Amino acid sequence: MRTAIGLDIGGTKVSGGVLDEEGRILVRTRRDTPDRSNAPRVVEDTLVEVVDELLAMAEEDGIDRPLTVGIGAAGFVAADRSTVVFAPHLSWRDEPLRESLGCRIDLPITIENDANAALWAEHRFGAAAGASHAVMITLGTGIGGAILVEGALVRGRYGIAGEFGHMQVVPGGQRCECGNRGCWEQYSSGNALVREAKGLAMAHSPMATDLLAHVGGDVSRLTGPAITDIARCGDATAIELLAEIGHWLGVGLANLAAALDPEVFVIGGGVSAAGDLLLGPARETFARQLTGRGYRPAARITAARFGPDAGLIGAASLGAREGNSPR
Amino acid sequence: MRTAIGLDIGGTKVSGGVLDEEGRILVRTRRDTPDRSNAPRVVEDTLVEVVDELLAMAEEDGIDRPLTVGIGAAGFVAADRSTVVFAPHLSWRDEPLRESLGCRIDLPITIENDANAALWAEHRFGAAAGASHAVMITLGTGIGGAILVEGALVRGRYGIAGEFGHMQVVPGGQRCECGNRGCWEQYSSGNALVREAKGLAMAHSPMATDLLAHVGGDVSRLTGPAITDIARCGDATAIELLAEIGHWLGVGLANLAAALDPEVFVIGGGVSAAGDLLLGPARETFARQLTGRGYRPAARITAARFGPDAGLIGAASLGAREGNSPR
Repeated sequence: MRTAIGLDIGGTKVSGGVLDEEGRILVRTRRDTPDRSNAPRVVEDTLVEVVDELLAMAEEDGIDRPLTVGIGAAGFVAADRSTVVFAPHLSWRDEPLRESLGCRIDLPITIENDANAALWAEHRFGAAAGASHAVMITLGTGIGGAILVEGALVRGRYGIAGEFGHMQVVPGGQRCECGNRGCWEQYSSGNALVREAKGLAMAHSPMATDLLAHVGGDVSRLTGPAITDIARCGDATAIELLAEIGHWLGVGLANLAAALDPEVFVIGGGVSAAGDLLLGPARETFARQLTGRGYRPAARITAARFGPDAGLIGAASLGAREGNSPR
Repeated sequence: MRTAIGLDIGGTKVSGGVLDEEGRILVRTRRDTPDRSNAPRVVEDTLVEVVDELLAMAEEDGIDRPLTVGIGAAGFVAADRSTVVFAPHLSWRDEPLRESLGCRIDLPITIENDANAALWAEHRFGAAAGASHAVMITLGTGIGGAILVEGALVRGRYGIAGEFGHMQVVPGGQRCECGNRGCWEQYSSGNALVREAKGLAMAHSPMATDLLAHVGGDVSRLTGPAITDIARCGDATAIELLAEIGHWLGVGLANLAAALDPEVFVIGGGVSAAGDLLLGPARETFARQLTGRGYRPAARITAARFGPDAGLIGAASLGAREGNSPR
């Protein structure tokens, strides 16, 4: 059995696992992501530790030794896939990650943007299996994304394709941390959901009475998962807040369908846990707003199969695919 | 010398030519596009006539007999590239064009969307030569588009990728003929330019006094080319109108750069004749609005090399490439 290591470097956690060729996680471990005040070397130390630990765990469990390391990272990965151009949650800027790690890990290393890795996992083993043209949307605090065309990831000329969250949907709209206004992720993301819920609560809207009661009157407890839980209990305001996020999701998907014409949109990330409370309104808006509707087949909109493990699974699979090929 | 026939089926004209391998047009002819009240057969008759005429012209001029026919069509071309799914200016709906023509033309036939053909021409011989990742925008009455990734056209799962003109940029904005509101082409196109100029004139704005004087007070003469001419003469209002179109062009390009990360945007179509009066403002907005600016290389924005012949040239080149390969 061929096995591979997958690592996923997120803003808060580094997850690692040894996976088989079917994308199953055989053993796993995790660490906190070092704070961005640390030097790049500190993050690398963590990655090396995780790999060493996984190799030891595999040996102990009698699992075939992994032959490759695939890394998914939340950041811009250059087209050469050796360098992380910019990672907002880390201290990386033009960090030659593959080279630095290559001196310390004696296995072929492949680096990929985390959303690309997640789409690859869904394409190989999940919600986009069998689709040659797919678009992934990861709804977390912001929006990440990835594109598959004819079975291959589209990385762009400089490796930075799929940054859908910063497509403008409202001229002069909400300020975004990217410096612009009206970015899609300001209307459809976990941050947008929480902002709107808190806004309602702080305006003392009677609509927010039940919502606030659910969190004991503590506005700071109005998190994305909390709002989703409250919506599942039937709270009309929480349902409406999720529907609004879903509406804007549908707007953006219709835009992406016009540009990319995929067969399927896969919706992942933490907010996608809301399921049809989110995807129902998204599908409605999409159906109403898709250009050429009635004259073309429409893409499916479906929930991701893999949750937080998607990056890990995809990174391992990409690493195995590329690391086992002659360079 | 290998030669190929290229045809471009537009809303008003069918252009045809015999081209060499460098994209040079050796002989050419054209016909009016049959009105959409005609049956599909009538358009096919025209195409067959044009091909026969071009073959005769080539023989007469001692040009090597063309071996392939490439057709660029203004419409949705299915992913199999045999069928035109929908062509708004013709009477075609699921028209099996390759099969119908194949019975009447004894050469391999390739069909391509006209914007894809134009981008292929720019990629092979023009403004996108040497770029592996390019996006074409054709600014005519509306916006057409095409995508090149790693040297290959991206057609989408159903052949309908690149319909950028119907990405929404203003929620609840101007009504579009596609049935939606706020489509990009309602803000950046020849139609948008003319609508705004006429709006100013009909509001009796003093800003429009000189503009109107240039067309003898006849609002109906405020066409795209007329406004461009007036801007070139230094009329401040005409310059401002073009700058507004350019601004919205830049907004949309920044959105597409976030999604696709190309090396170059090629701007073609009739409105692109305005040159830097259009592209200057587009570049300014793009530079201000590109997400991740300062942390990434930015795409170039450049005028197309080929004007109305781009579709013809690209279609001939694609036809030669595919028609000469074993199927």
